[in-house]
Amino acid sequence: MPELEVNPDLQKERNTATFEPKEFSIFWAGGEEKYKEKKALEKLFLDDPALKDDLPTSYMSHKELYEDSLRKACLIGEKIRQLRADGEDGVDTYTAVLGGSLGAALLKEGNPMSLHYVMFVPTIMGQGTMEQQVEWLPKAWDCEIIGTYAQTELGHGTFLRGLETRADYDASTQEFVINTPTMTAYKWWPGGLGHTANYAVVVAQLYTKGEFRGLAPFIVQLRDMDTHRPMPGIDIGDIGTKLSMKGVNNGYLGLKNVRVPLNHMLMKNQQVLPDGTYVAPKNSVLTYGTMMFVRCVLIRDTAHSLSKASTIATRYSAVRRQSPIDPKEPEPQIMDHTTQQLKVFPQISKAIVFKIAGDAIWNMYNVLSGEIEHGNLNRLPEMHALSCCLKAICSADASAGVEICRLSCGGHGFMDCSNFPAIYGMTTAVCTYEGENTVMLLQTARYLVKVYGQALAGEQLVPTVAYINEAIKLKKFVNFDCSLDSIVKAFQFVAANKTRIAYEQIEQRRRQGNSTEVAANLSGTFLTSAADLHGRAFLAQTAYTELMAISKRVSPALADVLKVVLELYLVDACLNRLGDFLRFIELTAEDVTKLEVRLESCLKRLRPNAVALVDSFDLHDRVLDSALGAYDGKVYDHIFESVKKNPLNKEPVNESFHKYLKPFMKANL
Amino acid sequence: MPELEVNPDLQKERNTATFEPKEFSIFWAGGEEKYKEKKALEKLFLDDPALKDDLPTSYMSHKELYEDSLRKACLIGEKIRQLRADGEDGVDTYTAVLGGSLGAALLKEGNPMSLHYVMFVPTIMGQGTMEQQVEWLPKAWDCEIIGTYAQTELGHGTFLRGLETRADYDASTQEFVINTPTMTAYKWWPGGLGHTANYAVVVAQLYTKGEFRGLAPFIVQLRDMDTHRPMPGIDIGDIGTKLSMKGVNNGYLGLKNVRVPLNHMLMKNQQVLPDGTYVAPKNSVLTYGTMMFVRCVLIRDTAHSLSKASTIATRYSAVRRQSPIDPKEPEPQIMDHTTQQLKVFPQISKAIVFKIAGDAIWNMYNVLSGEIEHGNLNRLPEMHALSCCLKAICSADASAGVEICRLSCGGHGFMDCSNFPAIYGMTTAVCTYEGENTVMLLQTARYLVKVYGQALAGEQLVPTVAYINEAIKLKKFVNFDCSLDSIVKAFQFVAANKTRIAYEQIEQRRRQGNSTEVAANLSGTFLTSAADLHGRAFLAQTAYTELMAISKRVSPALADVLKVVLELYLVDACLNRLGDFLRFIELTAEDVTKLEVRLESCLKRLRPNAVALVDSFDLHDRVLDSALGAYDGKVYDHIFESVKKNPLNKEPVNESFHKYLKPFMKANL
Repeated sequence: MPELEVNPDLQKERNTATFEPKEFSIFWAGGEEKYKEKKALEKLFLDDPALKDDLPTSYMSHKELYEDSLRKACLIGEKIRQLRADGEDGVDTYTAVLGGSLGAALLKEGNPMSLHYVMFVPTIMGQGTMEQQVEWLPKAWDCEIIGTYAQTELGHGTFLRGLETRADYDASTQEFVINTPTMTAYKWWPGGLGHTANYAVVVAQLYTKGEFRGLAPFIVQLRDMDTHRPMPGIDIGDIGTKLSMKGVNNGYLGLKNVRVPLNHMLMKNQQVLPDGTYVAPKNSVLTYGTMMFVRCVLIRDTAHSLSKASTIATRYSAVRRQSPIDPKEPEPQIMDHTTQQLKVFPQISKAIVFKIAGDAIWNMYNVLSGEIEHGNLNRLPEMHALSCCLKAICSADASAGVEICRLSCGGHGFMDCSNFPAIYGMTTAVCTYEGENTVMLLQTARYLVKVYGQALAGEQLVPTVAYINEAIKLKKFVNFDCSLDSIVKAFQFVAANKTRIAYEQIEQRRRQGNSTEVAANLSGTFLTSAADLHGRAFLAQTAYTELMAISKRVSPALADVLKVVLELYLVDACLNRLGDFLRFIELTAEDVTKLEVRLESCLKRLRPNAVALVDSFDLHDRVLDSALGAYDGKVYDHIFESVKKNPLNKEPVNESFHKYLKPFMKANL
Repeated sequence: MPELEVNPDLQKERNTATFEPKEFSIFWAGGEEKYKEKKALEKLFLDDPALKDDLPTSYMSHKELYEDSLRKACLIGEKIRQLRADGEDGVDTYTAVLGGSLGAALLKEGNPMSLHYVMFVPTIMGQGTMEQQVEWLPKAWDCEIIGTYAQTELGHGTFLRGLETRADYDASTQEFVINTPTMTAYKWWPGGLGHTANYAVVVAQLYTKGEFRGLAPFIVQLRDMDTHRPMPGIDIGDIGTKLSMKGVNNGYLGLKNVRVPLNHMLMKNQQVLPDGTYVAPKNSVLTYGTMMFVRCVLIRDTAHSLSKASTIATRYSAVRRQSPIDPKEPEPQIMDHTTQQLKVFPQISKAIVFKIAGDAIWNMYNVLSGEIEHGNLNRLPEMHALSCCLKAICSADASAGVEICRLSCGGHGFMDCSNFPAIYGMTTAVCTYEGENTVMLLQTARYLVKVYGQALAGEQLVPTVAYINEAIKLKKFVNFDCSLDSIVKAFQFVAANKTRIAYEQIEQRRRQGNSTEVAANLSGTFLTSAADLHGRAFLAQTAYTELMAISKRVSPALADVLKVVLELYLVDACLNRLGDFLRFIELTAEDVTKLEVRLESCLKRLRPNAVALVDSFDLHDRVLDSALGAYDGKVYDHIFESVKKNPLNKEPVNESFHKYLKPFMKANL
């Protein structure tokens, strides 16, 4: 095969696109300035040969993978130290290098020091007194100590009050005595806890003067500063291999009568005085803020995952030829199969909509933070409810979307060199961590049912649920004309009715004699699906509002493409919840067929710009790390390159032949 | 924690179950005889200490994993040799040991010698002449040679006519000259091809006397019998790491002017005479039979996957306690959360229904085989269409179901010691191999559209599509009363209407001037969803007929449970395709709510027997291989045991601390 700059099928796609990818790339990055910063950061990290893998991580044993991850984490830490010294370590830098696309390019199975930067340091900043910050932060920023955040236990996750680790204050020595009294009390999961960190913030049930006081965070030294050996009373290690994040060094921690001084409890919000007197916190609102911040980041992460997966699948679909449409013709690019378009293109549209929704909720969060600082907590429950269900929906949809992209690449998507298995692993993890998805949906639903009661009582609701007021007035949805605007309105109407039914189910079960709690549990599936529709209505509304607004700001060529993206997203979203639509809105069978035909029309119209659209996500080849998805489209060459790295192929005959196979084959001779 | 025989919560579930699990276990195994055989086979293989893993495979490097897999494959081969000598090597033994639950317990990442037994030997039996069988089969059965089956190429899978490997007959030496002329012609994927097999059946485009003759199979020696070094002209190796089946040693193979003698072409169906004269095969029907056989096995495999995943999730849900339903009460077993029941219980019902459907289609296949031998090919297209869509539906639903079970176990499901990641990997692979799912659905749909035309023309259709005749007569579905019987009939009505719309879409696009082929491609998504409903209608009908029949044969106690399983399966299936139901059948919003309430009622009624039901799948702890799902329910003890096997935990301080971490931490001091 002759050496080509770019696969000709892929080049043809680029030549015939109707818009300029760079215009969208700059929007995608967040503007000219951020686009430049992104490029600079990529150069700094990706051009460093020490941060390139000779051996793909999938070939390594768990132990080798950890050692290699730690090696690279230290190199990355060194660069961060330098950026910090130069005053160039903004929040965006940390999220990009530790968790975002760039982070995954550097350490695709995760960074064992991430939690030091994103949890240990911020917890000291947020919950430590000024004195504590002065004592601990310089050491932590300089990485003289490496910390992690230990909250979740082997037997206890979501329900924090169920945590078993306890800290008993001993006034006689002015120390806390920390214990994990049972097997299920062991701290479990914290990243870097296994063999990397030598400090941790440990969350424990606080007892002073023999009385229970609630949860409190303690700074605990885990390992000796010089030898790194576990401190007395510390039982610690790595929890083992996982579906992904194999380099994160998630650990376990048992504590037996571990004593820490009084001033190791982080005391900004609550205090223990030397005599054991407990001073309770004023309010716990601030921790909601942190959780919402994390969820905003996660929503953006799901958009990143989908942008990666859809880029790989789209480019491969342009290069791969298979299965003639007309038996007399040669095999077409698989992207010309309508069924292939239906798999891949909606994932592109979701990547864009999730990104936009992530930005929107990020902006709302920033406004909210300002309000909270001024003591205005009005919108907190609303925002909390919204961030919960969006985290759940975006992570679930993104995980499913990554798998659809993988499956769309057939057998080759199954190979690790496609990078789909790793992308899936990182994406599906988001369904579970930082609030398991079902728990998230139930939190949203609890809020929705509450406001539904308020709406019934005639109260005017806050903006993101105001559609419930409308729906109660409307009773029946009329004039569904399949326009984008009416799809958005229909989503809200459907969402309001799902909340109504959840509300009615709970009420009915209460009337049957159940407590509110039991009635809510029995209505659990009604609740989660109401929350699901609430989030989808927000996504539809935001996609519509934002993409129409953006279309007015950009070139007509790009605007045309974005409008197709919007239409595809909305029609696909509607058809994916068709049962709910038909249940509450009168649509004929012909209306539905019209929507389906329209979906295929969207696919057809997006087809000429699909490659240009994923190009404009502007994902570095190292970020994609995929033989199927590289910018040059030389799929088969890259697959062969990956095969050459396989340690099994370094020798023509593996020693196992002599050890096992030959004796077995010759046994009967 | 005191040593317990069985976790008390789990024991309580067993004590209060209303039926005897062993009764169902015997049915599940296929009767008393098969139940005993299964137990004997488990004893023979699972009690052998050499076949137990000291180190879980997830901790191994790719190379170590291959070497360990080959070691065990040879031990398994030795036992098979013994069983064969004793005349105890029936088809069931091979499927159990090489691919089934037992196979996964022995080699959870697959067996590098499987293809020798399930493809190489059967191909020689099916396509070799008597002389060829006499020459090759004894050596192959005795494992003096280890073979594989090399058909798929790097650039060519589904579309066999696109294969590039060619065999040119040289009459002067009476040899074939085999070549893979391009990079994309390389054979890719065959199991055991990398470093294990020394022979292969290679499928190539045959040319004799300069003329193209079609595809033909050739026996090719790959490696030297003594040294195992690749033969001249052979470029061979392992294709690298994958999402799963990491021990299978999938390989690649390039051939450069490799010469094989005339009698190495398998000539039962077609012949090349010494002078190069080509004798074409009489018909190609028999290969359809093989494909259908494989698909029947795969449908059963998906049931196995779901039985494993649902067993693990159900037992864990009985042991794990979390999130109070009533804040004043202690944390309940998570199985008491309705949302948890909705995740796990439908997977139990699907495991049972897929098993039953697999058995039903297996019986149909056996009847068909008899008919084919008597020259009656009437039901072949119908059976082919059915097996295609069922393979697609069962593999897709089982994959999704395994992930739902994993996610239902929260973070702990994410750990490899849960075994969910490996079960998912093996299950989702079925979506792609032996006919990619979308291709399968399109094959079914092509058949459906054809018979729809026949039905319109007034022809009476064959049994599995006869519902289309009914639906055309019926026009409108009346009296949907939510009974199980009417759900089954409604599924058929909906399926018929989906086929009608696909048919109409193609017709319309043809009228717009498109060729039939282009019209079909443009209607691709209509076609796949028609095929999907056809398969689901068959599953609903079969579940109903078979489970009602079985219920009459078993004890009343078991019959009651099976009826709940049936009801749960049907109501859940209906709600999962609600959009289609509402589109073609007049249901009020209240009817839908009734169905949803009924779903919750099924969950509630299954709840007391859920543990007993999965117990009765009778899966050996080694088959489950899950800390979360072991029979004794000692979840946390088993997790700790798994942690002790982690090589990273063998030393308190990993050497990477001294190499990387300490220098980094002390850099600024």
